[in-house]
Amino acid sequence: MLDETHDASLTSWVESANVPECDFPIQNLPLGVYRPRGHHLSRIGTAIGDSIIDLAPWLEGSTLDSYLKLPRSQRRDLRKTLSGALRKGATSQELIPQTECDMLLPASIGDYTDFYASIHHAANVGNMFRPGNPLLPNYRHLPIAYHGRASSIVPSGTHVQRPQGQTGAGLFGPSRNLDYELEIGALLGPGNQQGQPIPIADAEEHIAGLCLVNDWSARDIQRWESQPLGPFLAKNFATGISPWIVSIEALEPFRVSAPPHELPALPYLQTGPETAFDVTVEAWLRSARMTDPMRLSRGSFRGMYWTLAQMIAHHTSNGCPIRAGDLIASGTISGPEKSNRGCLLELTWNGADPLHLPTGETRTYLEDGDEIILTGYCERNGFARIGFGTCRGVVSPART
Amino acid sequence: MLDETHDASLTSWVESANVPECDFPIQNLPLGVYRPRGHHLSRIGTAIGDSIIDLAPWLEGSTLDSYLKLPRSQRRDLRKTLSGALRKGATSQELIPQTECDMLLPASIGDYTDFYASIHHAANVGNMFRPGNPLLPNYRHLPIAYHGRASSIVPSGTHVQRPQGQTGAGLFGPSRNLDYELEIGALLGPGNQQGQPIPIADAEEHIAGLCLVNDWSARDIQRWESQPLGPFLAKNFATGISPWIVSIEALEPFRVSAPPHELPALPYLQTGPETAFDVTVEAWLRSARMTDPMRLSRGSFRGMYWTLAQMIAHHTSNGCPIRAGDLIASGTISGPEKSNRGCLLELTWNGADPLHLPTGETRTYLEDGDEIILTGYCERNGFARIGFGTCRGVVSPART
Repeated sequence: MLDETHDASLTSWVESANVPECDFPIQNLPLGVYRPRGHHLSRIGTAIGDSIIDLAPWLEGSTLDSYLKLPRSQRRDLRKTLSGALRKGATSQELIPQTECDMLLPASIGDYTDFYASIHHAANVGNMFRPGNPLLPNYRHLPIAYHGRASSIVPSGTHVQRPQGQTGAGLFGPSRNLDYELEIGALLGPGNQQGQPIPIADAEEHIAGLCLVNDWSARDIQRWESQPLGPFLAKNFATGISPWIVSIEALEPFRVSAPPHELPALPYLQTGPETAFDVTVEAWLRSARMTDPMRLSRGSFRGMYWTLAQMIAHHTSNGCPIRAGDLIASGTISGPEKSNRGCLLELTWNGADPLHLPTGETRTYLEDGDEIILTGYCERNGFARIGFGTCRGVVSPART
Repeated sequence: MLDETHDASLTSWVESANVPECDFPIQNLPLGVYRPRGHHLSRIGTAIGDSIIDLAPWLEGSTLDSYLKLPRSQRRDLRKTLSGALRKGATSQELIPQTECDMLLPASIGDYTDFYASIHHAANVGNMFRPGNPLLPNYRHLPIAYHGRASSIVPSGTHVQRPQGQTGAGLFGPSRNLDYELEIGALLGPGNQQGQPIPIADAEEHIAGLCLVNDWSARDIQRWESQPLGPFLAKNFATGISPWIVSIEALEPFRVSAPPHELPALPYLQTGPETAFDVTVEAWLRSARMTDPMRLSRGSFRGMYWTLAQMIAHHTSNGCPIRAGDLIASGTISGPEKSNRGCLLELTWNGADPLHLPTGETRTYLEDGDEIILTGYCERNGFARIGFGTCRGVVSPART
């Protein structure tokens, strides 16, 4: 539902928020947990322009844990309050420069579930390993997912140590197929009681907001370990998330309809129109020898086969409890074109088609010193552009 | 390491602890979280005979969270202190009858990992679905596991609602293949830093104690959803655990060597002798029409192909962080004989060979009203028998 907070003509007394390409105009107001460098206490803030406004006057706590337990109506009220307080003409407050803060995890993440909601990603991966039969029979019937590891989720900027692991019979060593995955995550709350599914019509009540997710993956470990129970050590060494949670309210202007399905969904997965979100996502690579990063892919969250509402309805359809602070991620966001592929497994076709970097280097998978930078933003005529900031990570060498 | 707390001749001033078949003699001293019925605050206690001793004089908190962060030496010291305080001749203290308390989850469980460590279970399941080729190539090389769902873990006694779910294209309804899994779990702590594997020689330092685990499973949902990323909704509707955490110190007298492997383990998985534990485990069924439960299986944790130390070393070999309060479970404990099979999938060979109950009823999978009771105990000549108590759950009808 659109309200006065989405008005494109709104400007802020924080001048840096009024610059056209800014990720954090007054129409965005994402929440996050920051710590001024040199301090040891973390605090809640909202990003505005190049600054942070501390949320202590409006919200208690040092993480978003309490916020995530609020009903959506109260989260919406907070957004309206913040919009008013930051509007041009309102009393100015202390601004904390983002460059002087470290960003931490936004909440105590209880459980993390990773979906597989891009049919283009699933088809590409399927074609590589099962040529001619890319999609398994269940794909178009339910949102496939697996449980990830909450303990390995790290904030943007954390170095990602190349994992060691088994890659075959008697083989153990540093992964040689280290990959990233470009995903969007949803931080959930308030959640449901065990045994009480969330109807799809109510699913969005339990999404506080979205962020970028890099589900770092070791493909060689994954191939060897994944049968019959799925990926495990190939994924749980690190998953990065961007620190600013863009509220589902901020995303209202960017609703679109999800792609049509070839098969009718079962009733519990049937949604109305405009339950997808048009978020453009990009992955960038900067090797240690590069000054500027190079874009690897650009895709859109709008093309996912399954929507967030469908993921939540499916996740809880058996009575599984979702708790405030849980994270679900979309799975790799890929599209129909090569330029839309959201991981190196697809982009290099498992190494068969290496990438060429401007330095003359080539890449099949990631090398030590490579930085992966994910970005995301929403644009639509008549509305202010809003951005997700970045999710960054540099690959550090394997432990010796 | 054996010490005075293991002396079989020790008796307690709590007379019920001195009865030969008691699960909780003074040699056991398991920890748990209890709430006297009618109260709303939970407390930490140790089970002794048919009673509970409150641990407030020795340990702070309303869960075991802080205890799990302690180094093993301090946990061992606490055990010695409790052994002294409960010994015959020591000053008696208030006894709280176990029958007047509800038992809660022992700790804030952050992440839950379920292994697949019984080669007999893996071979039986494999034979059912891949006749002639039961074990996948990776099985003897690494402990297979998947991430479970921490939010769905419930204490013993919680009713388990039959889940609904998809069981094929266009099919949605209550699971018709509801099963239990007889497992042992380890509650972990203090844990490791991300990026720092736990060497196998140190792995047991991070095991606080063991409990029984019932990893309830919906086999029809599992078959349809599990490719390519593993089980998801087939498992995350409920996982039951027994409330008393039997410390690894209490299990010292029951150390045995694990079964020999046909293939040499990689160095990071190589252990010394006596890293397995001889815990006998049983599953019992009581239908709504039965007065006494009927034993379905009896097996031993000693026969698992992979030990707990190997599971922890493997889990962290890629740098994955384990935190105090994490739970790992063994996977279904089955043995070479039919009487050792730890789930109905194996016992009834996916329904082909139904069970006959003393009431004249038959079972392929669980019916509403069925209660599953798991028990476990350790016995060895020259030592006091110790028990795990029970992990119970009654199947309630699917939501309508």
